[in-house]
Amino acid sequence: MALDEARAVGLRALAKAGVPDDHARTQIELLLDAELRGVPSHGLLRLGRIIERIGNGVADPAARGAHSWRAEGFLAVDGQRGLGPVVANAALDAIAERARRTGIALAAISNSNHIGMLGWYVERMADEGFTAIALSTSEALVHPWGARRAMIGTNPIAIAVPTGEGEPFMMDTATGIVSMGEIHDHANRGAPIPSGWALDAEGNPTTDAAAAKDGAIAPFGGAKGYALGLALELMVTSLAGAAVGRDVVGTLDSDRACNKGDVFIVMDGPRHDLSRYLAELRALEPAEGFERVLIPGERGRECRRRRLVEGIPVAEAVWNRMQALAGVEHVAG
Amino acid sequence: MALDEARAVGLRALAKAGVPDDHARTQIELLLDAELRGVPSHGLLRLGRIIERIGNGVADPAARGAHSWRAEGFLAVDGQRGLGPVVANAALDAIAERARRTGIALAAISNSNHIGMLGWYVERMADEGFTAIALSTSEALVHPWGARRAMIGTNPIAIAVPTGEGEPFMMDTATGIVSMGEIHDHANRGAPIPSGWALDAEGNPTTDAAAAKDGAIAPFGGAKGYALGLALELMVTSLAGAAVGRDVVGTLDSDRACNKGDVFIVMDGPRHDLSRYLAELRALEPAEGFERVLIPGERGRECRRRRLVEGIPVAEAVWNRMQALAGVEHVAG
Repeated sequence: MALDEARAVGLRALAKAGVPDDHARTQIELLLDAELRGVPSHGLLRLGRIIERIGNGVADPAARGAHSWRAEGFLAVDGQRGLGPVVANAALDAIAERARRTGIALAAISNSNHIGMLGWYVERMADEGFTAIALSTSEALVHPWGARRAMIGTNPIAIAVPTGEGEPFMMDTATGIVSMGEIHDHANRGAPIPSGWALDAEGNPTTDAAAAKDGAIAPFGGAKGYALGLALELMVTSLAGAAVGRDVVGTLDSDRACNKGDVFIVMDGPRHDLSRYLAELRALEPAEGFERVLIPGERGRECRRRRLVEGIPVAEAVWNRMQALAGVEHVAG
Repeated sequence: MALDEARAVGLRALAKAGVPDDHARTQIELLLDAELRGVPSHGLLRLGRIIERIGNGVADPAARGAHSWRAEGFLAVDGQRGLGPVVANAALDAIAERARRTGIALAAISNSNHIGMLGWYVERMADEGFTAIALSTSEALVHPWGARRAMIGTNPIAIAVPTGEGEPFMMDTATGIVSMGEIHDHANRGAPIPSGWALDAEGNPTTDAAAAKDGAIAPFGGAKGYALGLALELMVTSLAGAAVGRDVVGTLDSDRACNKGDVFIVMDGPRHDLSRYLAELRALEPAEGFERVLIPGERGRECRRRRLVEGIPVAEAVWNRMQALAGVEHVAG
């Protein structure tokens, strides 16, 4: 599907839900960028829930967040139930401007909705010359290492670094071994999941995707990934004053006020040419079973370049839903 | 061995090498804390190389680092070849004081020696009420995911968060699946290493520890851990103006100026009681094969409490070396 067509229908659906035009554009660009990069779990699929949340009063389409500088480099943001990317971008703009003077600034956001793919934010900052870190918590879906029950969010971390000559480096990864979306996808296809991915509701290891849906995802990288995911949970919770563990709600449902936290750190540091080093990595001889050595973020960027020309594949059900929400005549995707 | 005895001999060895008393105390406390926590690879074993480096002129025992505030929250530190913990502590003190006013501050350190166990630094910051992140690069020992050759440091990350009532949370992990020290230990014992830990010098998977010594360690957690380790390499290199990849030297040899980088970020945020959540984690029913659910950092702290009373186990060879360096009569440990 042509990008413009998806954008137009998405904007119309958001307008119909009462979202001001500039906020709608921010929200839809985030979702489209996920589609472009090949991350449909964070793409247009999310539009329906966003609009339901507006209808249910747990997302305020007009809010941009109330900013309060706790200190010169520390911005506390009450998201006022605003749309995730609208609140996040306003916070980022504020701390980027501040970091130009102070060298580093932080935004800690509570009471805001799902901010989607973290890479989108840090890449924008790196395009402006900043090194940036983005963190966000989520519903508890991941089990502590050695435990039987989900108690930690999938807590993604994204980091972007300007590289001098080339495009910025950007990595964006959740701290669960796999996303719950991936497990649902396996369940929908009746496919088993690899051993080590998840536990069932009783806390026993399972390869049955349907059973894993009610269970817990493993942290990536065993005890080390558990330590990292838990550290991010505590750090974001503490800095943003957000809910923790199983108390977190509002990114997977349509009717509860979202109480997770988001943290951005923006650094205006020196710039060094890292592109030669990255070129060396790219040129490395691949190991058995690998076609080439990948740099994080680059496969998504290649996908985006291709899809900007060729358009994006949107699942029939998602496209039908979008059109219904936009109140437009059904058109095959 | 009694802690006091190890400290006294260590201090005498450092004094003999020309280290001023306050710097010697900082250096020895770092090494002793590693012994106390059960991390001998970062403990007294390192003393010999530190003293050799002083003798070879690539470590300056009197230097504390030259501080230059690039911006209000951004401290650039030329370590002046100083001892790692001396330079790091001086930088931390400066940014902690600054963060009390600005909410967040960063130190980017180059030209300093090995700073040892990162957890030591962030835990101290959290004891003072700060949330803190510590990063450090190292010699390239880790291979990119899907590559055959080491190109990335073991790049540890440590994060500490005050928890309110209880002791601070602290995690400290390298981004390699295992340390090179562990591989050497297997080789010394003639024991094989698990499959997936390392490649040999030709870039092929190996379970032969001796072969792995000349090869490359896998990133922890596959592609995700690779992305994180690389992000930390680029971020530290860029912010600190340090060497990158295979150009990094000076933490594993005795005669080359150390050109890795260190980055600390200190945040003076709100404080929330996270101890209830951590207590819930601790109380979780353990999975099959686990005795209990551990909180990162706590096993090391338990070990420290025990060893503060019982003393530390120091390998015979390490103890003999220390005594020789201190010029004291040989005493059995």
